[in-house]
Amino acid sequence: MYELGRSHYCGELRETNVGETVQLKGWVQKRRDLGGLIFLDLRDRTGIVQVVVSPEVAGEEGLKTADRVRSEYVLDIQGKVVARAEGTYNKKIPTGTIEVLAEKITIINQSKTPPFLIEDNVDASEELRLKYRYLDLRRPEMYKTLKMRHDVSRIIRNFLDEHGFIDVETPILTKSTPEGARDYLVPSRVHEGQFYALPQSPQLFKQLLMVAGFDRYYQIARCFRDEDLRADRQPEFTQVDIETSFMDKEELIALMEQMMKTVLKEVKGIDIETPFPRMTYDDAMNRYGSDKPDTRFGMELVDVGEIVKDSDFKVFANAISGGGMVKAINVKGAAEKYSRKDIDQLTEYVSRYGAKGLAWFKVEEDGLKGPIVKFFNEEQQAGIQKTLEAEVGDLLLFVADSKQVVHDSLGALRLKLAKDLQLIDESKFNFLWIVDWPLLEFDPEAGRYFAAHHPFTMPVREDLPLLDTDPSKVRAQAYDIVLNGYELGGGSSRIYERDIQEKMFKVLGIPEEEAREQFGFLLEAFEYGTPPHGGIAIGLDRFVMLLAGRTNLRDTIAFPKTASASDLMTNAPSHVSHDQLLELNLQVKL
Amino acid sequence: MYELGRSHYCGELRETNVGETVQLKGWVQKRRDLGGLIFLDLRDRTGIVQVVVSPEVAGEEGLKTADRVRSEYVLDIQGKVVARAEGTYNKKIPTGTIEVLAEKITIINQSKTPPFLIEDNVDASEELRLKYRYLDLRRPEMYKTLKMRHDVSRIIRNFLDEHGFIDVETPILTKSTPEGARDYLVPSRVHEGQFYALPQSPQLFKQLLMVAGFDRYYQIARCFRDEDLRADRQPEFTQVDIETSFMDKEELIALMEQMMKTVLKEVKGIDIETPFPRMTYDDAMNRYGSDKPDTRFGMELVDVGEIVKDSDFKVFANAISGGGMVKAINVKGAAEKYSRKDIDQLTEYVSRYGAKGLAWFKVEEDGLKGPIVKFFNEEQQAGIQKTLEAEVGDLLLFVADSKQVVHDSLGALRLKLAKDLQLIDESKFNFLWIVDWPLLEFDPEAGRYFAAHHPFTMPVREDLPLLDTDPSKVRAQAYDIVLNGYELGGGSSRIYERDIQEKMFKVLGIPEEEAREQFGFLLEAFEYGTPPHGGIAIGLDRFVMLLAGRTNLRDTIAFPKTASASDLMTNAPSHVSHDQLLELNLQVKL
Repeated sequence: MYELGRSHYCGELRETNVGETVQLKGWVQKRRDLGGLIFLDLRDRTGIVQVVVSPEVAGEEGLKTADRVRSEYVLDIQGKVVARAEGTYNKKIPTGTIEVLAEKITIINQSKTPPFLIEDNVDASEELRLKYRYLDLRRPEMYKTLKMRHDVSRIIRNFLDEHGFIDVETPILTKSTPEGARDYLVPSRVHEGQFYALPQSPQLFKQLLMVAGFDRYYQIARCFRDEDLRADRQPEFTQVDIETSFMDKEELIALMEQMMKTVLKEVKGIDIETPFPRMTYDDAMNRYGSDKPDTRFGMELVDVGEIVKDSDFKVFANAISGGGMVKAINVKGAAEKYSRKDIDQLTEYVSRYGAKGLAWFKVEEDGLKGPIVKFFNEEQQAGIQKTLEAEVGDLLLFVADSKQVVHDSLGALRLKLAKDLQLIDESKFNFLWIVDWPLLEFDPEAGRYFAAHHPFTMPVREDLPLLDTDPSKVRAQAYDIVLNGYELGGGSSRIYERDIQEKMFKVLGIPEEEAREQFGFLLEAFEYGTPPHGGIAIGLDRFVMLLAGRTNLRDTIAFPKTASASDLMTNAPSHVSHDQLLELNLQVKL
Repeated sequence: MYELGRSHYCGELRETNVGETVQLKGWVQKRRDLGGLIFLDLRDRTGIVQVVVSPEVAGEEGLKTADRVRSEYVLDIQGKVVARAEGTYNKKIPTGTIEVLAEKITIINQSKTPPFLIEDNVDASEELRLKYRYLDLRRPEMYKTLKMRHDVSRIIRNFLDEHGFIDVETPILTKSTPEGARDYLVPSRVHEGQFYALPQSPQLFKQLLMVAGFDRYYQIARCFRDEDLRADRQPEFTQVDIETSFMDKEELIALMEQMMKTVLKEVKGIDIETPFPRMTYDDAMNRYGSDKPDTRFGMELVDVGEIVKDSDFKVFANAISGGGMVKAINVKGAAEKYSRKDIDQLTEYVSRYGAKGLAWFKVEEDGLKGPIVKFFNEEQQAGIQKTLEAEVGDLLLFVADSKQVVHDSLGALRLKLAKDLQLIDESKFNFLWIVDWPLLEFDPEAGRYFAAHHPFTMPVREDLPLLDTDPSKVRAQAYDIVLNGYELGGGSSRIYERDIQEKMFKVLGIPEEEAREQFGFLLEAFEYGTPPHGGIAIGLDRFVMLLAGRTNLRDTIAFPKTASASDLMTNAPSHVSHDQLLELNLQVKL
């Protein structure tokens, strides 16, 4: 039997420990035999230390044990810390100036050869990594990311605790309210034919906590959406959920900025400037073609409609006369980097966003060049150059279409080009508030309005009459926080008057009876002394992803799910027994 | 319009604030008109302050506004803090020496008359309180309890953070593993006919985090059990979930004791002694008839079998000869307090636990009295008196039956009598470890063994051979923590070797194929260098309930469910649309 306990973690040993007798526990990263000695790299969550097994110190028995050792065996090592000879320092690891001379070596548990090497930058498929997640999580970068997640949560909790917020747990088994994304349902065994829903957010509960006078609430809350997944979505995700009463937007925004500043300082050692810049929703769309612009680089969208509306290039002229627009981006100094074939590929890229073409010029010493240059007179050409601040060597790219297509396609193209040309300073953390959101978005397919955020967002008071006449013009008291081109979170002031909430449901086309059935408790609560309140929710998974400099949301979650919402390790979801369904009065239709 | 922001919370104002101009937000607890003045008790989460509205200071307009005010209206008060005349101090509230002279009073929101008074010791039914939970939570004792819950979580987190634990979130959408309680299921839309399950605990995930080398894990984790509910159970509950590698039982127990000590000190200002007492499972059953004894009072069960086995009282003699036992409790000084009729009621009470009768003696100056005294000779009577340390005025109660019935019935009776006679010092916090648990319990109905804790608990190594020969004799490396008669949590060392885990599944009667289907990933993980590990889970809801001196678990949860697992506020569970079921390929059978 081995002995429990340890005196040190592997990665903590330094020259100051030389001479000490230590007991370590860890996994074998690597074993090397060198002239009658065996060298073991022993790993735990703090790092790696070199263990030397010699027959003189560990005995023949010890050497024999060390000889049986393979990668990922679990060992108990007792020995002495000694300094390495200066020439044999391993500068790649913090313990590289010392090693542990093993006196006793015990195999605690064995390991089969793992299906992939336990090291950073592993080249195994993500599928294999997810199936053996417990091995994947042994890789130092995975542990570091999850440790950072812990730190971020801790810092946020401490910050909010210090500011008088109270952490309240809200239910996971709750009521289905189909307005919003698709709910995950949970059949009730006791109430036949009835279902709970997993919460898409604690929205209504946190508002009711404000009605209850809790004043400042937070929760690091699990949320659920049964949607088809994109790379940066998971069926269950975590948000830092915050709600306050009697606090205006400016106060809450300032508080959030302080919170972000604290996190960045403690986790990354970076001082970020506050207040964060603000941009209206309209500006963001106009200048970046996105409601979550990445401002770490320029290449803004420029409207050239006025200049080209009378040109002989019908695509441009018709777009304008048909109520659309023509916008362009200037890819500085990129003329030489993009051949016609490359530009064809960019054209193909923007077509995914609905653009029917991508017009272009290259800027040379004697002016604009390109297949369509002939359709523009000298004045128009000069106007384009001036407006786009074009210089020799620049590549100018144009889309002419409806406003939405122009913004979607050029917004996406801008991001793609910045990545391709490595224009982005990855060390930057550019926070940005997007303000002055529209309250509603009209969906032509559904033939009705949807809430741009959610149905509980307070309209700007002076716009209230527009709810009857022109709902699309109503502004919301909402603000999103954006970091490096990702929507990090969304906040708003909430409706706290029953009549406004009922009108909101009506504008959204929710029949009165359905509104009462689903949200009756909220409407009723508004009649018992509801304070003005508002709050914000910050996506924790995404925040950690950006802080850790990663691009895959799954790397920030210990046991994530795939794009088809499967857990490859446990094989969830799975079939259940007939008896289980019987108890729930359920039948699966095939 | 009112103005946002506040200068102080209501309950914080003191004599040191006299002369300051303040802005308060709050709810009207009470309004009184007194000779042209209006007095308002304004409440927020911190407490109550008296606001005086006079025509001289607030103007006629202010007085008119105050006159419209009703209970639970939300007000914005601007005014000046003044000292009260000494004779008018309100000693019941901390702000009772001052009041606020209103200069401006604004009604922010109105309130209908609430369905019950917002005050502690409300006499509304719990049903009504749950339906209007947002009003119930306005009651100071509810806020205080939930604030205490927040504090307990915070203290535990800080303690564990300081001790190198990492907080990791594990999935809520996971795999159904029917061994244990009944799972809540979540149908998958993408994988037809398949289901997720909500976790009964993060048990397997935390063990896999140990396989991953995380070394010290914790999570304040939501868990779910679809069981018929008792008073101290909820369909979703929260546990402080902890797991460690390479740490022996003694180290973990000492750490938990420090954690509890820290919580008690910070939350209650109480110094509790460590180490906590320990009692074996057998001792607990023998002395208290319970595996979670309340040791705040004595009245232990005493075995009198040896003394009475040859008596003429057949009920006793037959119980012994039939393999059962006779035990008694001595209710000190209670002889006068219990009439024959009272004792009949106690007999009725123990019959619920299977006891066919309750024998009794009262101790008088000249010895034992009671209807069955004639069946015992002098020596036997003296033996009973001596063994039970009986004195004049004591009431002695006996049950003769199988071991289980004796322990169940006398264990329950002991608790009932202690409550009835108010023998319990409610200020005490008696922690206790129950050790040396059996690994398995045989269920005669199911005809098989069940795990006393869970199937992942490590047997005592020297008992391993008994798994083949006499499984009921195998001891578990498990320990429960008990507080004041409640099971607060359970810990154990875990199995970390595949062959032992497989044997455990076999003893539990789980077919090999099923074990692989359900737990294959765990069995496989054990083959890749699994460290010895163990952990504990502490029931947070119950812990807070005991700390807050409450008896209803629902009072510690912001939005709890009823005994039929309903949320009376939101009306969850509820019917869902046909389309929702269609998407899930489900049909409800009627």
